[in-house]
Amino acid sequence: MTEQGTSRRRFFTGAAGLGVAAGVGVGVGVATGYGIRAATEANAASTDPGSTGAASTDPDAQANAIVPFYGARQAGIVTPQQERLMFAAFDVSTTDVEELKRMLGRWAAMAARMTQGKQVSDSPTKPAQPPFDTGEAMDLGAHSLTITVGFGPSLFDDRFGLADRMPPELTAFGTIPGDAVMRAELSDGDLCVQACADDPQVVFHAIRNLARAARGTATLRWSQLGFGRASSTGSQQVTPRNLMGFKDGTRNVRADDTATLDAHVWVGANGASLAPEHEWMRGGSYLVARKIRMEIESWDTDPLEDQEKIFARFKDTGAPLTGGDEFTAPDYAKLGDNGQPVIDIDAHIRLASPEQNNGLTILRRGYNYTDGQDPATGKLAAGLFFIAYQRDPQTQFKVLQTRLGKSDLLNEYIAHIGGGLWGCPPGVSAPGDWFGKSLFT
Amino acid sequence: MTEQGTSRRRFFTGAAGLGVAAGVGVGVGVATGYGIRAATEANAASTDPGSTGAASTDPDAQANAIVPFYGARQAGIVTPQQERLMFAAFDVSTTDVEELKRMLGRWAAMAARMTQGKQVSDSPTKPAQPPFDTGEAMDLGAHSLTITVGFGPSLFDDRFGLADRMPPELTAFGTIPGDAVMRAELSDGDLCVQACADDPQVVFHAIRNLARAARGTATLRWSQLGFGRASSTGSQQVTPRNLMGFKDGTRNVRADDTATLDAHVWVGANGASLAPEHEWMRGGSYLVARKIRMEIESWDTDPLEDQEKIFARFKDTGAPLTGGDEFTAPDYAKLGDNGQPVIDIDAHIRLASPEQNNGLTILRRGYNYTDGQDPATGKLAAGLFFIAYQRDPQTQFKVLQTRLGKSDLLNEYIAHIGGGLWGCPPGVSAPGDWFGKSLFT
Repeated sequence: MTEQGTSRRRFFTGAAGLGVAAGVGVGVGVATGYGIRAATEANAASTDPGSTGAASTDPDAQANAIVPFYGARQAGIVTPQQERLMFAAFDVSTTDVEELKRMLGRWAAMAARMTQGKQVSDSPTKPAQPPFDTGEAMDLGAHSLTITVGFGPSLFDDRFGLADRMPPELTAFGTIPGDAVMRAELSDGDLCVQACADDPQVVFHAIRNLARAARGTATLRWSQLGFGRASSTGSQQVTPRNLMGFKDGTRNVRADDTATLDAHVWVGANGASLAPEHEWMRGGSYLVARKIRMEIESWDTDPLEDQEKIFARFKDTGAPLTGGDEFTAPDYAKLGDNGQPVIDIDAHIRLASPEQNNGLTILRRGYNYTDGQDPATGKLAAGLFFIAYQRDPQTQFKVLQTRLGKSDLLNEYIAHIGGGLWGCPPGVSAPGDWFGKSLFT
Repeated sequence: MTEQGTSRRRFFTGAAGLGVAAGVGVGVGVATGYGIRAATEANAASTDPGSTGAASTDPDAQANAIVPFYGARQAGIVTPQQERLMFAAFDVSTTDVEELKRMLGRWAAMAARMTQGKQVSDSPTKPAQPPFDTGEAMDLGAHSLTITVGFGPSLFDDRFGLADRMPPELTAFGTIPGDAVMRAELSDGDLCVQACADDPQVVFHAIRNLARAARGTATLRWSQLGFGRASSTGSQQVTPRNLMGFKDGTRNVRADDTATLDAHVWVGANGASLAPEHEWMRGGSYLVARKIRMEIESWDTDPLEDQEKIFARFKDTGAPLTGGDEFTAPDYAKLGDNGQPVIDIDAHIRLASPEQNNGLTILRRGYNYTDGQDPATGKLAAGLFFIAYQRDPQTQFKVLQTRLGKSDLLNEYIAHIGGGLWGCPPGVSAPGDWFGKSLFT
């Protein structure tokens, strides 16, 4: 083993050991089994300088495709959509709120490192210890990894003393149209983590290591992998297509449209007032997810003209049936030769459009998925893992889905089989801060 | 709809309509429901020039990352490994061999087009017809798509008159060590299709459309998605890691090592004699797949030194425990200070090495996978979808696995839960040829 000395020493070189310190608020700092120091008050002062996020402004780091982790808002919401998703929902298994807080601190410290393409810990692994990091992303870059954390309505029951901190926006919807077949084992969860990156192994590594660091505190409830279009064929980026073959996202909110984001996505933007006990969500956003199974074998037998009637767009170009190109606004009033609206009264884009919903707007961030063969039916199990961000799901997604669920022509070919609602707090501002810290203090 | 005229006309422009012609061997040419002309004798003369594969030598086509489809050998075997996999096994549902032959002809015609980044058919879709192509890859390039087809032992039963055409190499293994827990619903199949590309939507589109064109003739039995490492962080390519965090493939056969490929991978290479009834496999290769579930939660609690003992490599560098760098040959004879071999007698790399197996060599082409949460255990279901090519699985994989399955230290952390054996015939030589044509004539 002597020949390995150099590289192993290099690997084992690093700041700090296990951080153990008395602290305010969290009680004690954390010596986890993983060598990961929680980014809590207890040890903010001793945090690895490599985790400060400063590297993200360095040109070398940019070339390595790093999305800054620390900031006023969580990354992964308006961040340009990466190509791969792993989404995970967790249930908290402890009833000790201090344990939960320490885990959220560990997650923040790990996320700060992983989003820079680093292993979860810079502490040396002793040979007799399990490695701190599972290792499969060791040679990969950050690939624009973002890790976004949210809190579900169930977290605000009587376990953690948070009941009066739950904003009314986070009230569970109950069963709204289209949601009747949602499965408990694919739905909800006390916490959610959305990991997005341009590499599937990087997102898997992130969720796997967060789940590992949660052991004893929270357990994985369900998870979902997703993919988008990898790239366009030419230099011009084109709108990705869903697995029904239609362009999806043509009219989505743009990341640089600050006014629209403030009006529809960010909680408490434009100085909106919040109850003091709900201030912890200011600068955050509410995440709604739906696992939307497509009946692709039925869809594939549907005539082209019917498919286009359902979406009210041409399949090849994405242009609305009322003419123009992909980005032309649909003319919902236009009548055809038969005196009927060219865009059917129940067409998907009509029912979902801001124009037909008093300006209702959400930020979509969906991924295609396939689970391979459905063992029950023998069919390909595939569809859209829909994610949307908004400032008030009660007046946004819930209203929109109630309308779509009742009469969308698309309903014949889709089923909502899972999903949930989470409040994603504002960003982790700096080492020492952590996901939702102000909720717990 | 008038504004759409131009683009829709462009979309609908294309050679030929449905190819219907009398033919030799196949009986009749094919008018499928999908506008796809089978590449059989019947219509070779009228094949779209765009499907000849000639484009693959064009610099523009190379830039678009096209792997030639037509050739003496099937692509996807020694082709540099693409980043994404969808593997599918099919059962033939018809008992009419002519239907099966027509389907294989359709598959070849579709594969020739899809591997060039084209839709499955250039025939126009009438509005009252379902689209010929499902459309989700419409704006994507070929992304180096390869489509590789194989025939399983079960195809050679009494349904199609092929019993005497089955080479002894294709004999099902029975239950060999390590294979006892393989599940029928994840194993075997009359046919297999390995679709590899650098985009997950492209491989999904390929399998989905082949499954669709098989309707009435063959049904999807099981499928698997896989991913590799997307890219290295720098300009230097590095060996990918499996989900145990170890480099995997360091000593794999190189695609340019023709002598080794001829000796170990290609059937009938170097003028080897084959029985006349088995000549159809000359230029082909035998594919063995194993879905290898990793017990990653147990693995993650295993000390680093034990993990390294199991593989007999250092986790960070990939170098053998006997020293050097990743590409240094392991020294199986070297003893440690304790007088025991440095590389354990049951270490994975020892048991799998050519040096310790009389030169036994296979070409590996595995992909990492995750199926998300295992609903039965709540654990992350993940592992390695192992694929290997070889000229005689009876003396290669079967012998190797018998040894590994008995005593590999790795066995504590893995389980073979699915897989199969297929004979992949030589390449589709040109339009008019199709997968395994010489098997059926």
